[in-house]
Amino acid sequence: MAVDTATLLVSCPDQQGLVAKIANFIYANGGNIIHADHHTDLEAGLFLSRIEWQLQGFNLPRHLINEAFGELAQRHFVTASPLQAKWKLHFSDTVPKVAIWVSKQDHCLYDLLWRIKSKELKAEVGLIISNHPDLDPIAQQFNIEYHHLPITKENKKEQELKQLELLKNAEIDLVILAKYMQVLSSDFIKEFPAVINIHHSFLPAFIGAKPYHQAYSRGVKIIGATAHYVTQDLDAGPIIEQDVVRISHRDTVQDLIRKGKDLEKIVLARGVRLHLQNRVLVYGNRTVVFG
Amino acid sequence: MAVDTATLLVSCPDQQGLVAKIANFIYANGGNIIHADHHTDLEAGLFLSRIEWQLQGFNLPRHLINEAFGELAQRHFVTASPLQAKWKLHFSDTVPKVAIWVSKQDHCLYDLLWRIKSKELKAEVGLIISNHPDLDPIAQQFNIEYHHLPITKENKKEQELKQLELLKNAEIDLVILAKYMQVLSSDFIKEFPAVINIHHSFLPAFIGAKPYHQAYSRGVKIIGATAHYVTQDLDAGPIIEQDVVRISHRDTVQDLIRKGKDLEKIVLARGVRLHLQNRVLVYGNRTVVFG
Amino acid sequence: MAVDTATLLVSCPDQQGLVAKIANFIYANGGNIIHADHHTDLEAGLFLSRIEWQLQGFNLPRHLINEAFGELAQRHFVTASPLQAKWKLHFSDTVPKVAIWVSKQDHCLYDLLWRIKSKELKAEVGLIISNHPDLDPIAQQFNIEYHHLPITKENKKEQELKQLELLKNAEIDLVILAKYMQVLSSDFIKEFPAVINIHHSFLPAFIGAKPYHQAYSRGVKIIGATAHYVTQDLDAGPIIEQDVVRISHRDTVQDLIRKGKDLEKIVLARGVRLHLQNRVLVYGNRTVVFG
Amino acid sequence: MAVDTATLLVSCPDQQGLVAKIANFIYANGGNIIHADHHTDLEAGLFLSRIEWQLQGFNLPRHLINEAFGELAQRHFVTASPLQAKWKLHFSDTVPKVAIWVSKQDHCLYDLLWRIKSKELKAEVGLIISNHPDLDPIAQQFNIEYHHLPITKENKKEQELKQLELLKNAEIDLVILAKYMQVLSSDFIKEFPAVINIHHSFLPAFIGAKPYHQAYSRGVKIIGATAHYVTQDLDAGPIIEQDVVRISHRDTVQDLIRKGKDLEKIVLARGVRLHLQNRVLVYGNRTVVFG
Repeated sequence: MAVDTATLLVSCPDQQGLVAKIANFIYANGGNIIHADHHTDLEAGLFLSRIEWQLQGFNLPRHLINEAFGELAQRHFVTASPLQAKWKLHFSDTVPKVAIWVSKQDHCLYDLLWRIKSKELKAEVGLIISNHPDLDPIAQQFNIEYHHLPITKENKKEQELKQLELLKNAEIDLVILAKYMQVLSSDFIKEFPAVINIHHSFLPAFIGAKPYHQAYSRGVKIIGATAHYVTQDLDAGPIIEQDVVRISHRDTVQDLIRKGKDLEKIVLARGVRLHLQNRVLVYGNRTVVFG
Repeated sequence: MAVDTATLLVSCPDQQGLVAKIANFIYANGGNIIHADHHTDLEAGLFLSRIEWQLQGFNLPRHLINEAFGELAQRHFVTASPLQAKWKLHFSDTVPKVAIWVSKQDHCLYDLLWRIKSKELKAEVGLIISNHPDLDPIAQQFNIEYHHLPITKENKKEQELKQLELLKNAEIDLVILAKYMQVLSSDFIKEFPAVINIHHSFLPAFIGAKPYHQAYSRGVKIIGATAHYVTQDLDAGPIIEQDVVRISHRDTVQDLIRKGKDLEKIVLARGVRLHLQNRVLVYGNRTVVFG
Repeated sequence: MAVDTATLLVSCPDQQGLVAKIANFIYANGGNIIHADHHTDLEAGLFLSRIEWQLQGFNLPRHLINEAFGELAQRHFVTASPLQAKWKLHFSDTVPKVAIWVSKQDHCLYDLLWRIKSKELKAEVGLIISNHPDLDPIAQQFNIEYHHLPITKENKKEQELKQLELLKNAEIDLVILAKYMQVLSSDFIKEFPAVINIHHSFLPAFIGAKPYHQAYSRGVKIIGATAHYVTQDLDAGPIIEQDVVRISHRDTVQDLIRKGKDLEKIVLARGVRLHLQNRVLVYGNRTVVFG
Repeated sequence: MAVDTATLLVSCPDQQGLVAKIANFIYANGGNIIHADHHTDLEAGLFLSRIEWQLQGFNLPRHLINEAFGELAQRHFVTASPLQAKWKLHFSDTVPKVAIWVSKQDHCLYDLLWRIKSKELKAEVGLIISNHPDLDPIAQQFNIEYHHLPITKENKKEQELKQLELLKNAEIDLVILAKYMQVLSSDFIKEFPAVINIHHSFLPAFIGAKPYHQAYSRGVKIIGATAHYVTQDLDAGPIIEQDVVRISHRDTVQDLIRKGKDLEKIVLARGVRLHLQNRVLVYGNRTVVFG
């Protein structure tokens, strides 16, 4: 069933004929569309689309697709609207490189490494970064570089420069904060915006520290987890995926933490998968997830 | 936000250029696509699509769209494959007429009548048919025709003829079996195939009679309900929607029935809504639901 | 299956032998316990329990049970701890009287009236109170008193006095805010604390006005509803029940409101049912729900 | 918060005073009950109970509790009813020994080993048994005995004898079939009944082989997994836990298998946890799960 495909994510001001023009572009080059999902946000006046076509028979060389689509956009899309056309290309047979950042908790790390090892997630782990040495043995188990970079108020700036250099040298495409428990500076995010974080609450509920303790004392009956892109505004980035689980009065804070771990693993893995498959389109502070 | 739209549901053998051809057809006639979802079942070699465009500015008269699309399909779609192109047009400003069939239980009837009255479901209730007189008062409450047609082994054939005539005279588009608890003959289904049923189990589990009793004695931890199109094969029709709810050892059969009623109401209402919005495409014994 | 039972809800400082003493008390009077759930909050040092026993064969007259249990508590429970013993008795064959308060939306009202009419909820509706005349016809449909009491900043105090008098005269046990959309004064709550509200968000997310609009603009992937007791602190009362439903980028604010209505109906009905069955024990700002 | 406790699971014919007698027995020996859940199945006339009390201060030696409770049962419980009293004692500070049986799939094995390693599941893995050599490296990773016992129609009987001997020598308390994909003979089950299996469907739907393929071709909208005790009747044993996940027409059989793996991991882990905490009481073919 696995056929190699190209995926185009595009958002631009809505106007008549966009679907036709994009479809013609692909058809004219011998591509066969196998999935396409076009959505218009009528309030925002925005056209949002994901198109996936078989590479087999597609006669436009890969390195030219982007440029060719750029011309198409030039000719047809860009309007008087303040919004400009944005697009992103992805080929199913390329394997993105990710960096997994952790602190002391290992559940998300183990989970991601298993999913990548078993090819459930199509990615390569370039390196693991942590502010603690604790999870080095797991990195060794899976034979992956582990960089221990302790963070203090004083050294944060220089450590972030080291982190950016590591990402650059390893040609990392995506940073996954798998319970990293540290805030990234806005300078870092400007430099490297492709960062997914798992937040251990059903955002926007229980923003900030110790969400499970907050949930317990508030006496909620359901807890959740949220995978989101990291922005300069802590815990406020665009949400990719969320899920929840029921709790009861019998659950202590420790039980909430335990149940939350299963949520965190699954929600983070889903969010990463959606991103790796070029299914997430960010606009404003919202996402369109082409599931 | 409510704009009048046309919706085209189409399935046909997959081939290159289908998206382009359909999109061009709409664009050429001045239509603006606001939602489109194209899916290819690679195993079945089938192209399945739902396209919704604004009627405002669309310069092809409604009564000609179907024919024009037929020509398009003639020219482009029909291939050597055994599968033929099938399509269905729907206009958001038309109000389909439904018949609700009930037995003695009133929960789904009340629920549907409230949803229609409150415009949540865009439909008109032409008539209510029942094999029992019990729910006539509700029909009166909402000022709707109520036809009491008792069914026995002996009179089933003639009663079905009466039912078909009632549907014909009232120009019913869809029959909703809201806990009708009677099997329709294959002759009836051939004559009037647009029938949605709510089955009080998570099909295919607990097919047949007394599913809640079956679920109880099997000791399951979750029960469900299923909205499906009725086919000649009882409880085996294409599934439109399903949902579930947790149960525990504290729940008696009566509790299962009570909890099941909330499921039945919601699952049936969702299934009906999806059908009324032209979001359900049946192929083989499966459905594509363009949610 | 329906046997008449007495239910005792009790909370008191934890100490050895409480289960034995309560069970002995019931056994000594010829009662047969059919359900009992004892929970200890070790952090709070609190014993929390719900015991249900068959009335048949129980030889202590009803009007004496409360007093007799009081003596038992006197003798055994009350300790040096700041917490005192609290308990609540309920007989399954008594039918509590409720008042339903509404504004303009009818979905929760319809739902509650159907559940009570169909005996799913064991209660009698004494009266309906609204700050708008809109839902009077529904009250008439079900033949229930409807009191239209418009609220303004100026008349709020006197209107609340009228409301309290109506509750008193009708001997109302519980007020259900079924989308009443008005804040009750702390004076009112002090006077009549048995009030359940349905909040149209997954508290504590989206506290305050227009939660569905807030949820939409935050771009969450799941929305919820919360049934809680009303306290003087708006939207912060003890939570009885919550539930959620998935949403996507295709859902407009109107879709969120529509999907939310089904949640609100079910979550409010569950919360009311749990309260009517004497299953909810409040301590601090949390609840123990003996499901 | 973790205090050492004893847990008693008991089922016997219902009669007055059982709660009192059991509670008195514990109180008289200086035990403090921290959780107790008594349930009566009125149809079956069966009393079902789980009681947990603090060991600290409990002055009856552990090795005598069982016998002492036996006498209590003798004196008070055993009635003319065909049902006899059954009970099971568990101490929270004992660490049960489990054997994990696998075939070629590693997701449940990894998951269980992580949960045990991280103390989320309180158990010791005595050995891993498989009919294939594939997962030996994982056993080595975690430094656990791995026994490769290939099964053929011819050698099944003798291999089961070897398996039983391995379980006996390692003093295994529970066998976990973590995707073992082999049927155990009724002789084996008679000899060693404590076996939990994860079935990759929402039982009783899609019993037997290739449930995900069955689910796909039936076109269901939700798939599930089931953790159950193994009985001589394949796929029909008492259900401990179930959970589900939504699927859509976009999901291929491979997607169902992938999504199912997350379900299988979580449902199996929950089932094992409930068993290890002495929370599951089997009667007839049903379970009472004291959650």
